[in-house]
Amino acid sequence: MYSGKVKEFLKKRKVSEGDFVKFVLKGVKYCGILLPNEGTSSTDSLMIKQESGYNVGINYNDVECLTNAGKKATLGGVSKFKDLKFNKQMPNVSLVATGGTISSRVDYKTGGVYMLMEPNEILKTTPELVDIINLDAIESPFRIGSEDMSPDLWSLMADIIAKRFNKGDVGVIVTHGTDTLHYTSSALSFLLKDFQKPIALVGAQRSPDRGSFDGSMNLICAAQYVTSDIAETAIVMHGTMNDDFCFANRGTKVRKMHTSRRDAFRPINTLPLAKIWPDGKKEVLNQYRKRDDSVKAKVCGGFENKVAIISAYPGADPEIIDYYVDKGYKGIIISSTALGHVPGYTQKKKDSWLPVLKRAVDSGVFVGNASQTIYGRVHPHVYRQLIELEQMGIVFLEDLLVETAYVKLMWALSQTKDLKRVKEIMLTNYVGEFNQRIVPEAFLY
Amino acid sequence: MYSGKVKEFLKKRKVSEGDFVKFVLKGVKYCGILLPNEGTSSTDSLMIKQESGYNVGINYNDVECLTNAGKKATLGGVSKFKDLKFNKQMPNVSLVATGGTISSRVDYKTGGVYMLMEPNEILKTTPELVDIINLDAIESPFRIGSEDMSPDLWSLMADIIAKRFNKGDVGVIVTHGTDTLHYTSSALSFLLKDFQKPIALVGAQRSPDRGSFDGSMNLICAAQYVTSDIAETAIVMHGTMNDDFCFANRGTKVRKMHTSRRDAFRPINTLPLAKIWPDGKKEVLNQYRKRDDSVKAKVCGGFENKVAIISAYPGADPEIIDYYVDKGYKGIIISSTALGHVPGYTQKKKDSWLPVLKRAVDSGVFVGNASQTIYGRVHPHVYRQLIELEQMGIVFLEDLLVETAYVKLMWALSQTKDLKRVKEIMLTNYVGEFNQRIVPEAFLY
Repeated sequence: MYSGKVKEFLKKRKVSEGDFVKFVLKGVKYCGILLPNEGTSSTDSLMIKQESGYNVGINYNDVECLTNAGKKATLGGVSKFKDLKFNKQMPNVSLVATGGTISSRVDYKTGGVYMLMEPNEILKTTPELVDIINLDAIESPFRIGSEDMSPDLWSLMADIIAKRFNKGDVGVIVTHGTDTLHYTSSALSFLLKDFQKPIALVGAQRSPDRGSFDGSMNLICAAQYVTSDIAETAIVMHGTMNDDFCFANRGTKVRKMHTSRRDAFRPINTLPLAKIWPDGKKEVLNQYRKRDDSVKAKVCGGFENKVAIISAYPGADPEIIDYYVDKGYKGIIISSTALGHVPGYTQKKKDSWLPVLKRAVDSGVFVGNASQTIYGRVHPHVYRQLIELEQMGIVFLEDLLVETAYVKLMWALSQTKDLKRVKEIMLTNYVGEFNQRIVPEAFLY
Repeated sequence: MYSGKVKEFLKKRKVSEGDFVKFVLKGVKYCGILLPNEGTSSTDSLMIKQESGYNVGINYNDVECLTNAGKKATLGGVSKFKDLKFNKQMPNVSLVATGGTISSRVDYKTGGVYMLMEPNEILKTTPELVDIINLDAIESPFRIGSEDMSPDLWSLMADIIAKRFNKGDVGVIVTHGTDTLHYTSSALSFLLKDFQKPIALVGAQRSPDRGSFDGSMNLICAAQYVTSDIAETAIVMHGTMNDDFCFANRGTKVRKMHTSRRDAFRPINTLPLAKIWPDGKKEVLNQYRKRDDSVKAKVCGGFENKVAIISAYPGADPEIIDYYVDKGYKGIIISSTALGHVPGYTQKKKDSWLPVLKRAVDSGVFVGNASQTIYGRVHPHVYRQLIELEQMGIVFLEDLLVETAYVKLMWALSQTKDLKRVKEIMLTNYVGEFNQRIVPEAFLY
């Protein structure tokens, strides 16, 4: 809310919130849209959305010659393009729009970002798509922030993607919030494990009304990716802080490693599949599964919901494992401290995780071990405790990410109750989720 | 266990396990210690520990002219030096030895690594120390793997360190397992927050009987660090995969990022305090607190045990929060999906974390929010849900690591029951745990 003094200042100049204004600041001319002042501490600051897309707050006393420029304001980026005309000669690709920042708008009344955009509005931010693909369908089964994603929705997405492919699409692009994008990419990788066409998951770290919006370049690179011969489920997002190229990262070996940077999605324990430039140039960095258009899309398995991730840390109460066992959980992924350790030979016996883990395994709960260090691999043969954990029946999941291990265990348990078979599934390399050898450059890539 | 054929082969040559042997392999002469063959799949392989420290397995058929060289075998590195003679003219430094791989030995009977070495044996691996420090005391309150560390032991360590400083030591070196080294470095940072002399925490990713043992160089760099004017609690470990230099990383902003690499400890959201070479060369990379020998060491606070870390992920059951509230927990750190999100406006109301988090806060549980992305910072003013979480009373902990947030919350709750005061403590920057601005190079440094 603007202060009384500012309200008077604006009233005198016949300027209201949402108007396009011109003004002078320290001798330099500027223009932009006057935004509401909500959620800021300085109620004397005029909030101006510049043509660059960035918002600035300027004390009204510093502003000279403020005038209403008369032009009706529009949100940058979104409404400057007409409906796109696609060319049916281009490869058929469909879009599955699920929500997230890539399809969001700032609500200038509250200062918060809302996921309000219609699916086809996403396209208007990116007219370049007409030169790469023929977008033959937009499916939008739901529109949510990715923090609200659930295993049921992963399966629903896979069904829609399979349907689209079986109608002949050469690739599918999924727009999605970034927070849990890497869980979804793992889930789709396993659900469509035998399929051999590219699926690109795309999000944005900045909303479309900001000058630094990254979703547009990500979409263009995704279009280049799904028309390539790399037949994997990949996250296609900025490779650097600049608008130079994207990485296509294998869906089971990628993680959001930063809260806000545009290049937040990094490959873990492997290199990206490829660098992809918006103009279609590609640099392949890893082995990949090749496109085979003859394979029919089939969704394999679903997700057992009674699976939990439990982190090991000093002072962590082992009773949390009993809690899940008593609740009827079928699977647990231990996020262990490094090579696979948990509190074991503790000074106070009640702090040890070993008896409760044994009880979990003996009760028929599948317990997998992945490392909280993120990089590297767990290993059952180095230290005494690890040998003991393995003998107890805990399965060491090599270089799997904790997140991938969790999704894979839900998926494995949906297919069989036979724990030997579950172990076999967990240790089978279906979609490149395991790496025999990790190249040194993959660390912190 | 060796096969019958190998046993006979060895018996004929009067060679037993543990003997120093000479032999010829493909025309080249070798020597080394014959180890037991335990835990390997090939019982026909002679296990030889070479003078380089590396173990090799060689099929007995390929070995020619094997003879018992008569010299009594010792484990490489450890016993080849006599007791070190320190020079009392050098700066007084003490060692607190707590266990871990740096003070371990491989048990060739089981193939596992044991933490068996006497504290003064650690020193024998590193005779270079006599040129840098006068080691005036070795304290070894306990010897455990760091996965078994507990908040009580953090306090015990701090008491010993304070006592040593108040006896006039210029610095203290703590040897420690690596798995939870960054939790301990956070804990000591807060317990000794006002103190202005250097504390170096040191571990090893490879045991002393291996040629790739890193603990020795880490100890030398730690000695260089604690005799410098950087008066912070830091982890001093390899900066690269090579034996070139170490990083001194601020204790509250460092994390073990790899299961096994020697350069696993990386700075998070900041640069290292300094690069330190074994010869004493230093390159300062960050601002630091300067040494002030006039400040007396005083341990501040302890740790409230009833604190838990809870991770947000798709499908995570919100009842886990009720579980901790009902168990009488005083504090919870939410490891949120990125900027601070948890499952909120989920399709099924029962999956939402918002009501249970509200219940937790309303019950007087302190709930802090830190990001599972590791890099970046949580922010309560971008998205609708985040504004709601903040209004509920959840405290957004900026760029704190989840691990640091957990340790700090235990520490804050040990000092006061007044939740306003706890919030104040949590948001006060005591030892550089917050960074106003994160330099771009700090990402994946």
